[in-house]
Amino acid sequence: MIKVKVVGCGGYGGVGIVELLLRHPHVKIQTLVAATETGMLMSDLYPHLKGFCDLRIHKPDEPAAQEPADVVFFSTPDGVGMVQAPAELAKGARVIDYSGDFRFNNTADYAEYARRIGRDPVHKAPELLPQTVYGLPELNRQNYAKDQRLVGNVGCFAMSCLLGLAPAAAAKLIDFRSVICDCKTGVSGAGKKATPIHHYPARYENMQAYRLSGHQHVMEIERMLGQLADEAVPVTFTAQVLPICRGIMACLYGTLRDGITREQVWAAYADYHRANSFVRLYDSKTAIGTANVRGSNFCDLVVDVDERTRRLRVISHIDNLVKGQAGNALQNMNLICGFPENTGLDFPGSYP
Amino acid sequence: MIKVKVVGCGGYGGVGIVELLLRHPHVKIQTLVAATETGMLMSDLYPHLKGFCDLRIHKPDEPAAQEPADVVFFSTPDGVGMVQAPAELAKGARVIDYSGDFRFNNTADYAEYARRIGRDPVHKAPELLPQTVYGLPELNRQNYAKDQRLVGNVGCFAMSCLLGLAPAAAAKLIDFRSVICDCKTGVSGAGKKATPIHHYPARYENMQAYRLSGHQHVMEIERMLGQLADEAVPVTFTAQVLPICRGIMACLYGTLRDGITREQVWAAYADYHRANSFVRLYDSKTAIGTANVRGSNFCDLVVDVDERTRRLRVISHIDNLVKGQAGNALQNMNLICGFPENTGLDFPGSYP
Amino acid sequence: MIKVKVVGCGGYGGVGIVELLLRHPHVKIQTLVAATETGMLMSDLYPHLKGFCDLRIHKPDEPAAQEPADVVFFSTPDGVGMVQAPAELAKGARVIDYSGDFRFNNTADYAEYARRIGRDPVHKAPELLPQTVYGLPELNRQNYAKDQRLVGNVGCFAMSCLLGLAPAAAAKLIDFRSVICDCKTGVSGAGKKATPIHHYPARYENMQAYRLSGHQHVMEIERMLGQLADEAVPVTFTAQVLPICRGIMACLYGTLRDGITREQVWAAYADYHRANSFVRLYDSKTAIGTANVRGSNFCDLVVDVDERTRRLRVISHIDNLVKGQAGNALQNMNLICGFPENTGLDFPGSYP
Amino acid sequence: MIKVKVVGCGGYGGVGIVELLLRHPHVKIQTLVAATETGMLMSDLYPHLKGFCDLRIHKPDEPAAQEPADVVFFSTPDGVGMVQAPAELAKGARVIDYSGDFRFNNTADYAEYARRIGRDPVHKAPELLPQTVYGLPELNRQNYAKDQRLVGNVGCFAMSCLLGLAPAAAAKLIDFRSVICDCKTGVSGAGKKATPIHHYPARYENMQAYRLSGHQHVMEIERMLGQLADEAVPVTFTAQVLPICRGIMACLYGTLRDGITREQVWAAYADYHRANSFVRLYDSKTAIGTANVRGSNFCDLVVDVDERTRRLRVISHIDNLVKGQAGNALQNMNLICGFPENTGLDFPGSYP
Repeated sequence: MIKVKVVGCGGYGGVGIVELLLRHPHVKIQTLVAATETGMLMSDLYPHLKGFCDLRIHKPDEPAAQEPADVVFFSTPDGVGMVQAPAELAKGARVIDYSGDFRFNNTADYAEYARRIGRDPVHKAPELLPQTVYGLPELNRQNYAKDQRLVGNVGCFAMSCLLGLAPAAAAKLIDFRSVICDCKTGVSGAGKKATPIHHYPARYENMQAYRLSGHQHVMEIERMLGQLADEAVPVTFTAQVLPICRGIMACLYGTLRDGITREQVWAAYADYHRANSFVRLYDSKTAIGTANVRGSNFCDLVVDVDERTRRLRVISHIDNLVKGQAGNALQNMNLICGFPENTGLDFPGSYP
Repeated sequence: MIKVKVVGCGGYGGVGIVELLLRHPHVKIQTLVAATETGMLMSDLYPHLKGFCDLRIHKPDEPAAQEPADVVFFSTPDGVGMVQAPAELAKGARVIDYSGDFRFNNTADYAEYARRIGRDPVHKAPELLPQTVYGLPELNRQNYAKDQRLVGNVGCFAMSCLLGLAPAAAAKLIDFRSVICDCKTGVSGAGKKATPIHHYPARYENMQAYRLSGHQHVMEIERMLGQLADEAVPVTFTAQVLPICRGIMACLYGTLRDGITREQVWAAYADYHRANSFVRLYDSKTAIGTANVRGSNFCDLVVDVDERTRRLRVISHIDNLVKGQAGNALQNMNLICGFPENTGLDFPGSYP
Repeated sequence: MIKVKVVGCGGYGGVGIVELLLRHPHVKIQTLVAATETGMLMSDLYPHLKGFCDLRIHKPDEPAAQEPADVVFFSTPDGVGMVQAPAELAKGARVIDYSGDFRFNNTADYAEYARRIGRDPVHKAPELLPQTVYGLPELNRQNYAKDQRLVGNVGCFAMSCLLGLAPAAAAKLIDFRSVICDCKTGVSGAGKKATPIHHYPARYENMQAYRLSGHQHVMEIERMLGQLADEAVPVTFTAQVLPICRGIMACLYGTLRDGITREQVWAAYADYHRANSFVRLYDSKTAIGTANVRGSNFCDLVVDVDERTRRLRVISHIDNLVKGQAGNALQNMNLICGFPENTGLDFPGSYP
Repeated sequence: MIKVKVVGCGGYGGVGIVELLLRHPHVKIQTLVAATETGMLMSDLYPHLKGFCDLRIHKPDEPAAQEPADVVFFSTPDGVGMVQAPAELAKGARVIDYSGDFRFNNTADYAEYARRIGRDPVHKAPELLPQTVYGLPELNRQNYAKDQRLVGNVGCFAMSCLLGLAPAAAAKLIDFRSVICDCKTGVSGAGKKATPIHHYPARYENMQAYRLSGHQHVMEIERMLGQLADEAVPVTFTAQVLPICRGIMACLYGTLRDGITREQVWAAYADYHRANSFVRLYDSKTAIGTANVRGSNFCDLVVDVDERTRRLRVISHIDNLVKGQAGNALQNMNLICGFPENTGLDFPGSYP
């Protein structure tokens, strides 16, 4: 059994990974750490876990929080992993970080990212950057080292866009100056902290775009698409929030290159995602919505061509807390620990 | 006092116009007609109207339904108005029809529209088409005749897109082959009839695109933009439905022409909508959502330029049942009856 | 025109009274005061009011906030009105306070109330208590003085229970030791401040009871029922919160006294509420829900007798922000200013 | 491996048991039967099951539908099981029926139940009634035969009330003429069929009581409480529906007998449910809501005494589709097949 520590267990990303780890056949949750709610039992904070996870939540500086683990998940905001991960790695752990701290391989890229989100551009553990990997198995599996020890888990919006656009980028189906990502997220994507804009009366019956001037996820998306396309792929990205809890639906647009046919589009998508068991492809005749992926690690893609306007249109659906966060983190754990990628993740969610 | 008849009073468009007419200072609701629920009182069907509108609902073929009126609203599906309007016009009424029956001025355009929505392309009252006007006062006020007697009220999606894109078309701000309308609607847009996809358990926590292969509103949008731009404006249009009741948010994209600046964009929008009291303009720093227009006849536009990708982005917000339907119908009534356009509509909705 | 000041304009109770005052034919909103958001325009805080209420929000200690008014609404939490009302009254204003500060006529009752809600039991303006009136016109109209200058507006839960139980108490229909009030409220009842339990992801798909150990509204309810019944009426009260924004549904139970018939029950209710134009009575065959009163000042009561168990069951429906708060406050203003009670309130809400 | 057939796989009860069976370690889903949607794959009807359950749905009269199974679930409305179960039993299957067909042990009780729900009071398989058992393991485990072959699964409202009131009945804590069950359900309890009252726009922001004149579940509740109490326990029952999908919250009231203390209440509840691993007890200080049981087979009970009014108040929370339906059905399967009751059910749901 693999011993796991979860740092930041109190938020939605923390409870999400705990729920998934409870289903994993080869894992024992050993240590829970959080900055607040310390001293409580996990099942006091989340009563639905009563009888399933009654561990005490430790402060980061308590001795119990320092106990070595085989795998450590940092379900923490930007800036935490880069400070605490080095000690965990030194104790022999593998580390999977949810934030942007380890999504970039060099200090220059990190600095640009940090500036966009208004943080100090100087990385606190620059020596680790060459060792980290962008944790998107479906696109990047071949770049994980044989003994990969550090993973930067992917942002939820980036996940929805990259799974939907990677085949178009890799097969050069579209004009790379024409890409638009119109992305709608459920409220849980903003985390557990109560804020005026996500207060129930302010959020029900309300849809709105936010942070139009630039969203941090654009950079991840453009970098990966650029690598796949082997040229720059600038993206217009619109983040929107809606009165649902879980789910991202991304409408992805690009103008088809001359001569590209619907059949070529479909073949490119089928080919690219053949080995990706969590990606399911549909044509536009099936009625797919985010409810079809709720609670699961799947990404359901509707791949469509608007012949009249010669435009590729892909509708990408994920559960932002599973494939967009904890589920993908667990998939990363499986990959770097030598389990089949879908171990403990091979289930369909529930409906309705 | 103007005497009004509402045909199709049982649906959301019908109850919507009844609610608005009750506030109008110069109107008396005289006759209610519907194909079903006949014999009931309006306030039995809609108990919130008890004491406000207790009129009996008549069948179309009852004598009481034939009573002449000054204005007749057809809140009916495609195909009804074209059959019943001639008799009302002959009795001297002015007619405002919610459907596509009178949105086109010639049989060829109508036939193309009808084919898209799977209906008989032969119009039943072709002699009326030259007399009708596309009922979008903000764009088309100057084309209403001095004694305009017939109006084709605008579709809700078309309303959200046209108010948001008209200035860009008229001022030629964008490349006209680059237009994308990513449109999200609340469920009330699909009407009152219970259907499996809008059953509460199927709709909550679910967002999905639908009818990707083509939506009837595209034609209205392309025609009006084409007239404004004086060249063809093909549009990629994506309809999506979300778990809210009221509201449309349309994200409208177009690539800026070379040399067009943010200031020129803003000036063009301010100029175009100066005389349109129901259109309010915001820059991207204000947090606008559909909740800001809920229950009112306003369209709130966030006008934004993504400098990095040289793209115009307009976020258009309306209440689909007010500015997208009954409110605009009343505005049309005011316009053709000689009242100020905002009579009975000059109120702000309620929050939260 | 009556000049009105609203203190506490930033919360839901404040924006609610502003919206209603905008519709009132005899009122001019003159001054807006709030403890936070000062300096902003009301329409910056609530963009839906742009063009309708663009007044600046003043701090309580600014000179502009001190301007005399004919009527002052204190849409403020417990403890504010009792400090600021004396000065307003001294300037000649009539005062309507939303909190518990002026719901009691003597210091002993206030002290008991204050203890229940954990506040200082010493009232700050005890000299005003004999002059105040419990602001529930339907039950208490006859106790308003000819020149009533101070009103304690009713709590929202108390409103729903008292309108539903007053006839049973007055006509002694039930065993007064058997009363249960099972009350469900929408989230807006908890106010505008963001809290973890009303964060959208915590509140959607969740219903829960809260503060079982005692709710402050019980005291108002028991006092009024006791006065009507002329004996003590202890009440078991259960507050519950559900994922809706607006609305209270109270299920009210009492065991029928021997011999009381369904007809006597119905007659007692019809008789009691005959003069109360905002109360509408229904039998159990009509499908009434909170949607029927949403946005309006009505209370819809379903009056039912469970013959098998000899129990009276009344289902009371109000909009907690209208009849439960701002609407009732305006009704109070009409009453003490000599307008018909329903002036500016005689409208039906909107549906759906 | 146990081979299972699900009759009525197309509804919420059917997809619910399929989801649970997929997690069960000793089960193979062999045959799916439904009256409509026949010929489709289960995963066409429910796309979230793609890759997990791609079986074809058979008509009841197809030969493939007749294949013998070890266990047959009838997730069908009243009247189906009594016709089809005899053949399945004859082929050696164990049968678990969701409807009222097998909840009663004699024709007289069935006839009374059938009358209440407006059905033919003559049971179609009266010879089976003596063999069936009321399928509520927590209350009735000792009445299952050693080789129990037929189970009448419990109604969802009855489940929520009986788990909450059984200890009070068995320990005679309350006056048995004082029982009130105020029950709120999510919309999924009404099934998958689209109806006007559960159309999204009619259901959002709406709470309402329904069928006040009598609900079929009362009879199940009164019968079981009567058996536990050894005297009649008449119940006033109020069914309410709210804008959530999953969950029942029942507020259960009874007047405490003289001398009964809070400690005795608590001891009686703890004692009664000690062996019931799916029942969790809380005092009123823990904030429990239906979200805590969503997606799981748990019933969370808040047990409270209102000392002031001498009233027992129990708040019962279940997921109506799990402990209220498919989960309990699977628990019944485990019990009659000799597996531990919680096999395949020992998981906590997910949050948020």
